[in-house]
Amino acid sequence: MTAFDTLDHLLGARFATGLAARRQHAGNEAHYDEALPDAVAYPETAEEVAQILRACAAGGIPVTAFGTGTSLEGQHLAVTGGVSLDFSRMNRILAIHPEDMNVTVQPGVTRKELNDALRATGLFFPVDPGADASLGGMAATRASGTTAVRYGTMRENVLALEAVMANGSIIRTGSAARKSSAGYDLTHLLVGSEGTLGLITELTLKLHGQPEAVAAATCHFDTVAAAVDCVIATIQSGIPMARIELVDEMMVRGFNLHAGTGLPERPHLFLEFHGGPAALAEQVAGFRELADDAGAGGWQEAATTEARSALWALRHGALPAIGALDPGAGKRTYSTDVCVPISRLAEAVALARQEASTRGLICTIVGHVGDGNFHCGLRFDPKDADQVAQVLAFSGALAEAALRLGGTVTGEHGIGLGKQKYMQAEHGPALDWMRRIKMSFDPQGILNPGKMLPPAP
Amino acid sequence: MTAFDTLDHLLGARFATGLAARRQHAGNEAHYDEALPDAVAYPETAEEVAQILRACAAGGIPVTAFGTGTSLEGQHLAVTGGVSLDFSRMNRILAIHPEDMNVTVQPGVTRKELNDALRATGLFFPVDPGADASLGGMAATRASGTTAVRYGTMRENVLALEAVMANGSIIRTGSAARKSSAGYDLTHLLVGSEGTLGLITELTLKLHGQPEAVAAATCHFDTVAAAVDCVIATIQSGIPMARIELVDEMMVRGFNLHAGTGLPERPHLFLEFHGGPAALAEQVAGFRELADDAGAGGWQEAATTEARSALWALRHGALPAIGALDPGAGKRTYSTDVCVPISRLAEAVALARQEASTRGLICTIVGHVGDGNFHCGLRFDPKDADQVAQVLAFSGALAEAALRLGGTVTGEHGIGLGKQKYMQAEHGPALDWMRRIKMSFDPQGILNPGKMLPPAP
Ligand SMILES: Cc1cc2nc3c(=O)[nH]c(=O)nc-3n(C[C@H](O)[C@H](O)[C@H](O)COP(=O)(O)OP(=O)(O)OC[C@H]3O[C@@H](n4cnc5c(N)ncnc54)[C@H](O)[C@@H]3O)c2cc1C
Ligand SMILES: Cc1cc2nc3c(=O)[nH]c(=O)nc-3n(C[C@H](O)[C@H](O)[C@H](O)COP(=O)(O)OP(=O)(O)OC[C@H]3O[C@@H](n4cnc5c(N)ncnc54)[C@H](O)[C@@H]3O)c2cc1C
Repeated sequence: MTAFDTLDHLLGARFATGLAARRQHAGNEAHYDEALPDAVAYPETAEEVAQILRACAAGGIPVTAFGTGTSLEGQHLAVTGGVSLDFSRMNRILAIHPEDMNVTVQPGVTRKELNDALRATGLFFPVDPGADASLGGMAATRASGTTAVRYGTMRENVLALEAVMANGSIIRTGSAARKSSAGYDLTHLLVGSEGTLGLITELTLKLHGQPEAVAAATCHFDTVAAAVDCVIATIQSGIPMARIELVDEMMVRGFNLHAGTGLPERPHLFLEFHGGPAALAEQVAGFRELADDAGAGGWQEAATTEARSALWALRHGALPAIGALDPGAGKRTYSTDVCVPISRLAEAVALARQEASTRGLICTIVGHVGDGNFHCGLRFDPKDADQVAQVLAFSGALAEAALRLGGTVTGEHGIGLGKQKYMQAEHGPALDWMRRIKMSFDPQGILNPGKMLPPAP
Repeated sequence: MTAFDTLDHLLGARFATGLAARRQHAGNEAHYDEALPDAVAYPETAEEVAQILRACAAGGIPVTAFGTGTSLEGQHLAVTGGVSLDFSRMNRILAIHPEDMNVTVQPGVTRKELNDALRATGLFFPVDPGADASLGGMAATRASGTTAVRYGTMRENVLALEAVMANGSIIRTGSAARKSSAGYDLTHLLVGSEGTLGLITELTLKLHGQPEAVAAATCHFDTVAAAVDCVIATIQSGIPMARIELVDEMMVRGFNLHAGTGLPERPHLFLEFHGGPAALAEQVAGFRELADDAGAGGWQEAATTEARSALWALRHGALPAIGALDPGAGKRTYSTDVCVPISRLAEAVALARQEASTRGLICTIVGHVGDGNFHCGLRFDPKDADQVAQVLAFSGALAEAALRLGGTVTGEHGIGLGKQKYMQAEHGPALDWMRRIKMSFDPQGILNPGKMLPPAP
């Protein structure tokens, strides 16, 4: 019996080799070429995942996990064929523990589904990558987003995991205790490993109390440098910002075109504050003082819940809005993702703007600047070889600068296909020790081959 | 040339084979037997550490790192002989970056040395295990202590590391950026690995702003159960406690005997609050309401900085104070360290008290109860076989209960020698994957042999 026969026998209609299902798992929201898996499996239990892995290990068939397919470095693409293992049917919320402020979920639950289920508890799960990604995919990419400045990333918010390893072994890492010194930290090893070390079949996540009061606002600055200075001063002052997002003038133009907003086309900060009523007032006043010092204008509060939702929906619509700046069939958007120590943020942003203008690229800047993380959105035509070369050169120059400034080539999008070329420069000799882990966990190399680790020289 | 000749040649007077130096590295503050290393090396640079490891690898000689030797599970003891690698001469603070709120240090710097150096910056390093441990040792044991409830443990506060691996390779993990999705998280893998995977030669640590205002206080309760209920209510209410420590009536008696304090011999909470003046008042008022509900009495504020220091010095003197309860040459103190989800804390503490009384053991309870972590201090005479058996049975029963309640056998002290016997029960099949990492990082097994991982069956 071939591996596919085994899987067909095991999963029945939940094992698909038809073109429609394969196509649904071949695309991406970034600029990578499509990649068709040979089949798609939809397991419902960890035991089924283990059986899939055992069958594929026996047949030497690659297995690439698929959450919602929103990752931006092609992580979920089955670039060497094999099975796309789709977690969408493992989407149950297993247990909410309000008294311990945690929740146990299957990996296919999306962050919006989770927060809907939590509404009545007074708790919420803060990590917010914009896209309604699966929690398994978010853990696997070590995702973060607009609220990480206050609540941390997936790294800080995953307490425990269940995972199926390449040989089909089912393991549990971590516990619901808030801390432990018992052994090697396998939880953090699996978080961010992009499905190359093991497949996550259950997660226990930290929850946070819904803030008593929330305020959201926008303001604008004369220059991006002034906005960045304001961010740096805010973070250094210790104001516990819940969100502090830079939106440069080009991005504002994109929003105006795409969503019909009439924002002044200047660099903006989009802000959110969480706290008790008194603390909230203190935070807003403290921030406004620093913003005034940086020459801010146009203070606009989003007074209602609806206005607040609209503000963040606008911000989260950055990707299509970038498209609106330079429409055209076949054009794509390349998104960078460097993250630097906050004191070097102004320098990094200035360099990005300089490089884009030198290279004649249309470039938006948005970013989770409270963490030192920002994204340049570059439009390009994949058929225009010169434009492609300029985009790649831009990305290379920015990555190099981030490393020189003491940062990282990816704050949250991950490595996948596109950032492998920087792994040696970022990690140096440490890369060999990552390879050792990969080789000892997955000696056959069946878990998401072609991702994260560049081929050994 | 033997390995020792090589080291003698390399380090000169900083390589000691005399009994005095070896004895200094043979003891421990817990109950373990002395273990003499064959030699002690005092490197001054990562390059020297690499040369030591290469020489020892060539000779198959064990290397056990030594910070300040305060670990409580015998982690630093050279139980199979070989070299004790003492980091005390690598004690420079390399760079303070107030604007990024981080600091880079060598591993031999102690936490008090670091905080002394930070005083003028308005920043501090919060992790506080009581003992003035080295930051390298604290990272290696994933230490925490009284302030973890607010500021996290070493897990949350190490941004980046330099480490020397078993084959002498020097690697860097992480960066000064606040977050990254670039590759496997080697930083968190090394934190908590007790010197069995690599030796830390440099750390970049997160710093925190010194609180604008601080209040410390104590209060007492009729029963331990009432005190624990108050803790649970406080944590669930979201009051951001800086410290919340349980001290049971037996421990209070120990303090009174040892330090001459005249505290009422009842279960106490020792408390600290950090914040702006308004927030601080709110926190204290909020806590007092919950404490009143739990029947608290005897509210005492430590109004001056001196009174506050005295309070925490008292708390940190728990180990000698336990000794005062049952003095006698040759007697020892066994300290447990379970950590459970906060909702199960009352149950775990009750079980511990029950087990101690059934077994006729003198038992104090102190704990970082905001995290669900507490320590039972048990006095025993190592020559009294029955008492030893009772202590071990107590520890086993408590460990089992912690696992049953969804917790861990060690919240902060680590595995070392004493907790290996619980590793299989806590981790199940995951233990094999820890062994894979150890085998692939240190195939010869020269890094701290005999620790953390129990022998494979
Ligand atoms: C409009 C837009 C905005 C975005 N903004 C952000 C942002 O602000 N911050 C951010 O961090 N990201 C952002 N992203 C990227 C994306 O949302 C994240 O990478 C997300 O974590 C991917 O989750 P997913 O469920 O779509 O995973 P997928 O894309 O399906 O998979 C991602 C990776 O995880 C692996 N994987 C999936 N599930 C599992 C599992 N159960 N076990 C093991 N491995 C698994 C896959 O094999 C793949 O390697 C954005 C994407 C879009 C489209
Ligand atoms: C009175 C008292 C109270 C305590 N209270 C607490 C508490 O509240 N919380 C808590 O967490 N702990 C507590 N401890 C335990 C102890 O302080 C911690 O375990 C501390 O982290 C040990 O640091 P150290 O420098 O003494 O390390 P050591 O004991 O010297 O070594 C500990 C382990 O780390 C390894 N190691 C040391 N340096 C390095 C390095 N540079 N690279 C790699 N490995 C290294 C050693 O090989 C060993 O395995 C207490 C101890 C005492 C005596």
